[in-house]
Amino acid sequence: MPTPASTPLDLPLIREQVDACLTGFLTGKIRTAARQGFSQEIPEIIAEFIGAGGKRLRPLLCVVGWHAAGGPGRPLPLLRTAAALEMFHASALIHDDIMDRSETRHRHPTVHHMLTHRHAGGRAPEWFGISAAIMAGDMALVWSDELLNSAGLSPARLATARSMVDAMREEVIHGQFLDLLAPLGPGTDLDAAWHIILHKTARYTIEYPLRLGAALAGAERALHAALTRFAIPVGEAFQLRDDLLGVFGDPVRTGKPVLDDLREGKHTVLLTLAAQRADRHQRDLLERLIGDPHLDEDDAARVRAVLQATGAHTTVEGLITDRYEKALTALGDAPCPPSVTDALRDIARRATERSA
Amino acid sequence: MPTPASTPLDLPLIREQVDACLTGFLTGKIRTAARQGFSQEIPEIIAEFIGAGGKRLRPLLCVVGWHAAGGPGRPLPLLRTAAALEMFHASALIHDDIMDRSETRHRHPTVHHMLTHRHAGGRAPEWFGISAAIMAGDMALVWSDELLNSAGLSPARLATARSMVDAMREEVIHGQFLDLLAPLGPGTDLDAAWHIILHKTARYTIEYPLRLGAALAGAERALHAALTRFAIPVGEAFQLRDDLLGVFGDPVRTGKPVLDDLREGKHTVLLTLAAQRADRHQRDLLERLIGDPHLDEDDAARVRAVLQATGAHTTVEGLITDRYEKALTALGDAPCPPSVTDALRDIARRATERSA
Repeated sequence: MPTPASTPLDLPLIREQVDACLTGFLTGKIRTAARQGFSQEIPEIIAEFIGAGGKRLRPLLCVVGWHAAGGPGRPLPLLRTAAALEMFHASALIHDDIMDRSETRHRHPTVHHMLTHRHAGGRAPEWFGISAAIMAGDMALVWSDELLNSAGLSPARLATARSMVDAMREEVIHGQFLDLLAPLGPGTDLDAAWHIILHKTARYTIEYPLRLGAALAGAERALHAALTRFAIPVGEAFQLRDDLLGVFGDPVRTGKPVLDDLREGKHTVLLTLAAQRADRHQRDLLERLIGDPHLDEDDAARVRAVLQATGAHTTVEGLITDRYEKALTALGDAPCPPSVTDALRDIARRATERSA
Repeated sequence: MPTPASTPLDLPLIREQVDACLTGFLTGKIRTAARQGFSQEIPEIIAEFIGAGGKRLRPLLCVVGWHAAGGPGRPLPLLRTAAALEMFHASALIHDDIMDRSETRHRHPTVHHMLTHRHAGGRAPEWFGISAAIMAGDMALVWSDELLNSAGLSPARLATARSMVDAMREEVIHGQFLDLLAPLGPGTDLDAAWHIILHKTARYTIEYPLRLGAALAGAERALHAALTRFAIPVGEAFQLRDDLLGVFGDPVRTGKPVLDDLREGKHTVLLTLAAQRADRHQRDLLERLIGDPHLDEDDAARVRAVLQATGAHTTVEGLITDRYEKALTALGDAPCPPSVTDALRDIARRATERSA
């Protein structure tokens, strides 16, 4: 008979359990808003936004981290902590979509766009949508705290979780700000691009969630270190894949207009490599088009041609493969049950090979 | 020899102690940002914004609440909790100023305006300012949590504080959203105007801070009830005074352009009373001018004349006086040391009679 540790982890079931926490929490918030004479629109719209999609990568990793440290079963305090990570992420995305002026995410309208649409008859509906979405993002942030604080963790575990979550949130906001400050257009500073990836994505998306779950089960220092060795390359590969999909992806599958990333002119490793290797003509083209808010499909095709001609595209694919393999090696050395290793290998593969 | 309870509370000293917590915390954040390769701009700008002014009403009330419940001395965990309230308030103001498109607060530029100005040479500096200020507000929110979580409270006290703070934040955001949803121009629903005051101001600004401080010193239920009876009328009077100053105040003293409130067309008790009592001609004038983003000084003078002719202005002065007296009566019955009663009387007077 298999021991619990070798029973495969049922990731779709974990996702359902986390989603049940989120839905239960938000349904409660919709009810209390009505009872207290407040509008139900904020909790409704957050529920709609979260329900519209997303990979639930952070809560899944949090639960897998728990099992990595030998945590038994899947107690409610763990699931609520995992749900808190997703609620915080919703807050970050709601505010991000405002800053990026994005109209859709996962093929659904963004929160500010939904709010503008719902109040289209009012005065200045676009500014209303932005204002209300700033508040909705703040509310999701505040509710992510409530989910965590009322998760039912012991005081000692809650203190550990709070200090990790506080550090994580500070770091991701600092990372986002670096991203905002990065020069528009094709910068040539590769270190800066990697620095942004580390703080904005790798640690926030992979390392913190995984180690948070492990910490809740009382992980030793050696396990934390092993999880970090796995998490950083996976997180880097995840972002590199995201950057490739942002330029070469199929909008039908990614649910994201393929011109947005080029129009924003994000400081990615992909574009930095291309800029470093470009000849004069190619460089002029990149400088003219990347970050141009009016860039069209033909322009995008020209940029893609440069990314391919300079080999930047192929190099990034190679960087992704390197990092995936590095993560698998780290996993081989990690003191985790086989069920956890299998789940993490699965997550790493999906994060780096995905097409959406 | 006076007992500690009858020594007058030194409010300016309390303010200095809270400010020292805020400055120490933010100086640390500026240093660590530099050490970790992040921009120092976010902590710098939050420090500048908080340093530029403000009444520190919420932290002062938190500390007075502590003394109300017989809390001894002024321990650091109390001061950090009080500082956390001010940091949260900074977050709310930073986001509020974006939504209201305000350029100044306390005669200093608002955060999004400072950020636009600092990056005036970049592309789309206004949108940069808004985006960066959304992040700065998020960071202040996250840091208000860190101040509280690391305040050094016992686990039981921290749990109490966290659940009050979580409820307070949800309530103020719901209140702000009601305010945003309220019909532009002169509405006639007085209940709605009072509902917004209760949740957006009275409970957030006065009741929660006072009761939070009292809870940290282990206040009994009777004291909480007495503090609520004092807090609600003071909070209502505070907002009514704010509404009057927004229309009749001296911009040199309030540090706030006097046309902003009329241009925004906020749903205030003052304007609602005027709209209810206006004759047809006056009502047309209010409907045309209030909420008009291009309203000028002459228009404002016309609105002021209607507020005076309808007696709305005088009625609101009367409502303020009623509430001030109600608060003093509640104070007379409250089981607090005389030093606390004196301090609260002082705060109530300043909150309701202020000219800035």
